[in-house]
Amino acid sequence: MSQISRGLENVFIKTTALTYIDGDNGILRYGGFDIDDLVEHTSFEEVIHLMLYGDLPTKVQLQRLKTSLNEAYEIPQQVIDTIYSLPRESDAIGMMETAFSALSSIYGEMWNKNTNKETAIKLIAKASTVTANVLRAKEGKKPVIPESSDSFARSFLSASFARTPTNDEVKAMDAALILYADHEVPASTTAALVTSSTLSDMYSCVVAALAALKGPLHGGAAEEAFKQFLEIGEPERTEEWFKKKILEEKSRLMGFGHRVYKTYDPRAKIFKRYAQKLSERSNEARKYFEIALKVEELGIEKFAEKHIYPNTDFFSGVVFYSLGFPVYMFTSLFALSRTLGWTAHVIEYVEDQHRLIRPRALYIGPLKREVIPIELRG
Amino acid sequence: MSQISRGLENVFIKTTALTYIDGDNGILRYGGFDIDDLVEHTSFEEVIHLMLYGDLPTKVQLQRLKTSLNEAYEIPQQVIDTIYSLPRESDAIGMMETAFSALSSIYGEMWNKNTNKETAIKLIAKASTVTANVLRAKEGKKPVIPESSDSFARSFLSASFARTPTNDEVKAMDAALILYADHEVPASTTAALVTSSTLSDMYSCVVAALAALKGPLHGGAAEEAFKQFLEIGEPERTEEWFKKKILEEKSRLMGFGHRVYKTYDPRAKIFKRYAQKLSERSNEARKYFEIALKVEELGIEKFAEKHIYPNTDFFSGVVFYSLGFPVYMFTSLFALSRTLGWTAHVIEYVEDQHRLIRPRALYIGPLKREVIPIELRG
Repeated sequence: MSQISRGLENVFIKTTALTYIDGDNGILRYGGFDIDDLVEHTSFEEVIHLMLYGDLPTKVQLQRLKTSLNEAYEIPQQVIDTIYSLPRESDAIGMMETAFSALSSIYGEMWNKNTNKETAIKLIAKASTVTANVLRAKEGKKPVIPESSDSFARSFLSASFARTPTNDEVKAMDAALILYADHEVPASTTAALVTSSTLSDMYSCVVAALAALKGPLHGGAAEEAFKQFLEIGEPERTEEWFKKKILEEKSRLMGFGHRVYKTYDPRAKIFKRYAQKLSERSNEARKYFEIALKVEELGIEKFAEKHIYPNTDFFSGVVFYSLGFPVYMFTSLFALSRTLGWTAHVIEYVEDQHRLIRPRALYIGPLKREVIPIELRG
Repeated sequence: MSQISRGLENVFIKTTALTYIDGDNGILRYGGFDIDDLVEHTSFEEVIHLMLYGDLPTKVQLQRLKTSLNEAYEIPQQVIDTIYSLPRESDAIGMMETAFSALSSIYGEMWNKNTNKETAIKLIAKASTVTANVLRAKEGKKPVIPESSDSFARSFLSASFARTPTNDEVKAMDAALILYADHEVPASTTAALVTSSTLSDMYSCVVAALAALKGPLHGGAAEEAFKQFLEIGEPERTEEWFKKKILEEKSRLMGFGHRVYKTYDPRAKIFKRYAQKLSERSNEARKYFEIALKVEELGIEKFAEKHIYPNTDFFSGVVFYSLGFPVYMFTSLFALSRTLGWTAHVIEYVEDQHRLIRPRALYIGPLKREVIPIELRG
């Protein structure tokens, strides 16, 4: 079956000016800027501007963008009701999928070069509202709409926990939003592209992306990685766990390895720094950071020769946990950030390189046969 | 950009034993059986068995399948409430997307070779409930759960219109369900496959497919084709309309042309037969059938040399309209039928040829640049 492009590996589905990955050398750039540089010197809002408009904003542009975000946090009451009417034990991404589907059935606008970018900005703001309310619904709390602030990350954290976050927390959340914002065309972005190719509306593109992200092989990795640390429980039990689970039972080490990176994922290094800093604030969090460090060491010792290194999901869970998020929310936080990459990619695709996506399947079934009437089929 | 596989044209994403298309000769087969033969001699339930289990059922197998369908029409009250809480003017496919997202957040089961096919059967039954209730919600009617019957099509029509359908109506609906059940890997099925590749649950695969189907270039074609007939309004105005719209203004003739078929779509012929038969029952419907016939004649005269012929969506609208469905439901009826193809394809993919779908994008953006702090950006 050499004709089959399995997993579409090495198939180029589009061009992009958004994200450059050099997997051999561990380089990730958005619009030409190294990811470290962006996390160090810019905010998520500046990265939104970069991805949608091709460059970092001026002060005036940034202020305008922040105003657009601040003005778009409202979502229709029906959508809020839908989130809170789902059983509390529902999957968090499934709840986001439901909310975005409802938004799509209400807002589904046509594509328009003059408004697509504003639509994306509004969608990203509404993603903050949806994500915060998925958390609150699952925790049995009351609905909330994020309030205007100088920072998207601050508004989101305030809404999620109904308290004022510290500047360190805001900076860590902002960094996470930048780090997960885009990664070229993984499965979720591919699902969004396929959806955009029929000229389905932008909210539906995000719905399809969420549906794909829901799978344990994609968005679930940060949760799975952190669950390992929970399972280990105490730093001194790490070695025994690793020996039994990874070496003997040959379980997959979650948070390690990536189809594109053949070295240390540059995002993992940054998440590690924030994990270290934030986890200092509580004994629980510090414990899980220590466990993560030990697993990392053992993992690299074992897998480095196979070019398998920590990926972005390895330390992100420690950051999210330290911020106060339950493990079941980690994928939703990824999704909140990635709404930027999804919308930026579908805008690139629809505006500049649109073509209906329609691959083929190779038929290997029975040759022509005739229907035998059911009475004679036995 | 010769490296880019635009629209994934001629990229083979999987193998399949479900559907064989010979576009040059206008042949469509499911599991080796000609589509005409299946419509003539089998029912949608038999085609469900064929697609999921590889062969047409025996009498006993068919009875078991019908029982499984009849037992699975119930959906959780929250999902019913969600459908009816959306604004009545919401897009019908968006409403289905929302309902399936809610089902996914409640039912999202893991993949399991022992239960996947049963899950698909239940999902198809629930699609009937969702579709009928989307119609009823939009029409301001009360919720309903389809009742057990000897026929999936009969249960669906009874639930939709709260009246007993005639045998001719049931047969036409059944034929439509067979005709739209699968068509290899168009955009919606591709979105479902991408979603399944992350091992996301089957309901989420259908959500992604619906998100893609929502686009006017895919599922909307039957609605667009029929809207042309509505716009023409009277058979004697067809020629004038065609001259102005298609020949002079160069508008696209909807319901004509297909990326795969270079001749008459075999499904279009069958739909034409049912459209003729059903439309005889009312003056309105007969009028639109006559208009369709005239547009077909003019379209073939003009476009046959370019290998552009009527596709499946050209006459299906006349059938759906004659059955009493509003135009806004045509795509949802397509979706109801296609839940079979979507689930059968993702089962094939996950069970036998699973691989995470992760294409690449070719970076064409700015080369490396350094962040200038915002204060200095002007």
